[in-house]
Amino acid sequence: MRRTVSWVAVGLSIVLSTPVLAASVRGKVRRYRAAHESAIVSQLAELTSLRSVAANPSGLSATADRLEALLRERGFEAAQLHAEGAPPLVVGTLRTPGARRTVAFYAHYDGQPVSPSQWRSDPFTPVMRSGPLGSGEHEVDWRVAKPPFDPQWRLFGRAAADDKASIVAFLAAFDALRALRTEPTVNLKVVWEGEEEAGSPHLPIFLRQNRDLLGADLWLIGDGPVHASRRQMLYFGARGLLGLEATVYGPLRPAHDGHYGNWIPNPAIMAAELVASLRDSEGRILVPGFSEDVRPLTEVETRAIATLPPVEDGLRRQFALGRSEGSEGLTMSTMRPALNVRGISAGKIGAEATNSIPSEAMVSIDFRLVPDQTPEKVRTKVESFLRTRGWTLVKDAPSLDERLSSARLLRLRWDDGYRGLRTDMSSPPARAVMAAAGERVAVLPMMGASVPIYMIDEVFHAPVVGLPIVNHDDNQHAADENLRLENLWEGMETYAAMMAELTWE
Amino acid sequence: MRRTVSWVAVGLSIVLSTPVLAASVRGKVRRYRAAHESAIVSQLAELTSLRSVAANPSGLSATADRLEALLRERGFEAAQLHAEGAPPLVVGTLRTPGARRTVAFYAHYDGQPVSPSQWRSDPFTPVMRSGPLGSGEHEVDWRVAKPPFDPQWRLFGRAAADDKASIVAFLAAFDALRALRTEPTVNLKVVWEGEEEAGSPHLPIFLRQNRDLLGADLWLIGDGPVHASRRQMLYFGARGLLGLEATVYGPLRPAHDGHYGNWIPNPAIMAAELVASLRDSEGRILVPGFSEDVRPLTEVETRAIATLPPVEDGLRRQFALGRSEGSEGLTMSTMRPALNVRGISAGKIGAEATNSIPSEAMVSIDFRLVPDQTPEKVRTKVESFLRTRGWTLVKDAPSLDERLSSARLLRLRWDDGYRGLRTDMSSPPARAVMAAAGERVAVLPMMGASVPIYMIDEVFHAPVVGLPIVNHDDNQHAADENLRLENLWEGMETYAAMMAELTWE
Repeated sequence: MRRTVSWVAVGLSIVLSTPVLAASVRGKVRRYRAAHESAIVSQLAELTSLRSVAANPSGLSATADRLEALLRERGFEAAQLHAEGAPPLVVGTLRTPGARRTVAFYAHYDGQPVSPSQWRSDPFTPVMRSGPLGSGEHEVDWRVAKPPFDPQWRLFGRAAADDKASIVAFLAAFDALRALRTEPTVNLKVVWEGEEEAGSPHLPIFLRQNRDLLGADLWLIGDGPVHASRRQMLYFGARGLLGLEATVYGPLRPAHDGHYGNWIPNPAIMAAELVASLRDSEGRILVPGFSEDVRPLTEVETRAIATLPPVEDGLRRQFALGRSEGSEGLTMSTMRPALNVRGISAGKIGAEATNSIPSEAMVSIDFRLVPDQTPEKVRTKVESFLRTRGWTLVKDAPSLDERLSSARLLRLRWDDGYRGLRTDMSSPPARAVMAAAGERVAVLPMMGASVPIYMIDEVFHAPVVGLPIVNHDDNQHAADENLRLENLWEGMETYAAMMAELTWE
Repeated sequence: MRRTVSWVAVGLSIVLSTPVLAASVRGKVRRYRAAHESAIVSQLAELTSLRSVAANPSGLSATADRLEALLRERGFEAAQLHAEGAPPLVVGTLRTPGARRTVAFYAHYDGQPVSPSQWRSDPFTPVMRSGPLGSGEHEVDWRVAKPPFDPQWRLFGRAAADDKASIVAFLAAFDALRALRTEPTVNLKVVWEGEEEAGSPHLPIFLRQNRDLLGADLWLIGDGPVHASRRQMLYFGARGLLGLEATVYGPLRPAHDGHYGNWIPNPAIMAAELVASLRDSEGRILVPGFSEDVRPLTEVETRAIATLPPVEDGLRRQFALGRSEGSEGLTMSTMRPALNVRGISAGKIGAEATNSIPSEAMVSIDFRLVPDQTPEKVRTKVESFLRTRGWTLVKDAPSLDERLSSARLLRLRWDDGYRGLRTDMSSPPARAVMAAAGERVAVLPMMGASVPIYMIDEVFHAPVVGLPIVNHDDNQHAADENLRLENLWEGMETYAAMMAELTWE
């Protein structure tokens, strides 16, 4: 996959990049990195070992303390912002004399929840391996290995990729520019969040209450993986997210299915019907009117997608897929809203199964929203549809009377969720970012995954561009999350370019 | 229980049963019981504390040893039969001088698997409570309480009801008759099995290889609960059982649903479609031709069902049901085959849920079979149907090639299963059992639950009649299994009648 993207072909003209300078800064940063690989990996390993997950508030707090210290060491004005019930928001500012523009670099330092039993090694004890699991890889003692490290090595640990790698790439890029005596072209701001994986419930408050401190002319979001072709990627939006926990009620206690089956309703079967009524196995959401609020892609966006390098055959092999859902292809299918069943549970399976009717079934769902859907509209449509299907909806655990009077009883617990965003790809700062990112960059109008960038748009009306650096095959959100070293190295160069080469009118 | 028995020495003459005598034997047994309640409950508590579940072979073995000893103490010729990989079959024989008929009393001493965390108290530490859980009950220290005990008390523990109560009722009835110097009318055989809850895989071998030792003119099966009206019940058949563990395959590893959802197939959604395609929420099995082999009920059977006391309103309240499946009513719906989903599992729910596509989904199913269905026919029909629905079926964990070449890949693991049986209700021994059971007995042509009585029919061609004694609301097969004392007392009287009043030409 060596084709380059022709920006003329996607309807944008590039005027501001100076490829010679870009190559030169990147090259110098690369040489700096080659001499500092151990220290950079050390920094990532140290941050990965901090238990910054929602279940561990003290781990989140310790991570915030450490990040604040790392910024102060580098001369940033740094602070932690606090809100009731929220992990600290770590904020840093460094002015560049004479700079007219301010760029905010966002990343999150919290990781997804962990189920340690599913991991090959402890999620918070970083382990370097020579490649992905199942590739004939072996463990590497990188602390005694002599650099340069094999760039295919991967550091395993929760949040190593999502997003601590972005934080470390930013810090290392900054250190490199300082060592190279290369001044940034813009004022730098850092916004590192501690509850993105919990849906960023407090970020809107933080943004609204700290407009001056956090305001910037451009936001770069260091979250998400690069393109599956392994090319550096930019994304100009992200889908929103809405979580739903549903409980279907059967008998008050599990009941012997020999004596009562065919008569006492089985909630596992009702849950299966529920799921099958909401979404089919080709990715189609069956809730009437669900797509009404979907804003069509522009021509520029459609063309950007068409120029992305093909990755599907590789992904099919990597995930051992005998088919894919739908026929639009991966990228176009993530431009649509999605309904994912992240979990379903009723009764017991295998050796633990008993011949009984379970008393309840639980389904955990996440929706991915696209502009101009909102969590409120989606919630209303799903609930209306379920009522027409005969479900009685409750918010809390039902009373005995509610159970007795409802033929099909369903408890729905929605999280707050947030909407998606697509930023205008043709604005001057957007074009400046594309220029600094280099010729081979893959441009995605909207990332399939969710980051709360709509909030930034809402408060600051500033362009928001995603600048992911980590490998797509990083197992983020699952067991054995890992960061491929080459992605850290390339990400560091890209971050350096975003600090030292960005300029627009 | 150290006294020895000498039935032969007592040498009472055998007389035919009459209703007057029946009432009189029951009354005498009742008075005996009133004076021995502590000892009888003690016996049940001791057996319940033995960990006779499939996961605990030594607990099964210890229980068999204890049961053999209890039979020997009473003068039975007792033995344990062994087969490779099977818990012992405990067998006892006691001849009655002059008796022309032999009656075999079957029960099982193994219990269903346990999930101790779901129990109010330890499954193997019997606890007496003043009533069912959630009834405002309190714990009772029966060991210091003065008899007569409140008959509404319940002893909680795994297998306390299913079937150790039947074993204790048999032993206590036998002790009562001996104390009353009332001679049995028949030769007694005891067959106590240790793997009924695992599907009785070795019982056919035991029966076939020990025809002389185990042969009898009538089999009484002490398994299952009495009618939900709390009346003594007889059943003249039982449905068969067939278990199926199904695994639906998705991506090789869980995948981020933001990046890959709508494209990587979600196995939880495929599993929901699978379940919904097999069975609807009204109890209808949707596999074409599934009911082809169902033998219609006879007029006698249909009439027996029509005369059963109504129980549905009480059950609806007890299980807090807002509806029931179908419209035939409870008993008629259990005369049909059934498909029960005993468990379903994929990904994680609630606080543990991650925004990812699970890598597989598992569904645990049990089928209830009726004459003349067989496990083979059912398996064939289900598999043919699934193939027409596009599933590729495998027996073992699939290879990478199988995953890559199959659009919908499903692993099916069937257990051996067994067929159902309905015994002729109009034969002389069947009618003798109904007469001895008393006027208020509820007669069910076939129990909804499964006991392996087809095996007895197959080997001995002898009538097989179910003689359950335990409360229907005993939570058998679930957490907090319990035995209501009044059921033990009434069951003991019924067992005494079956020993001392049965006679037929």
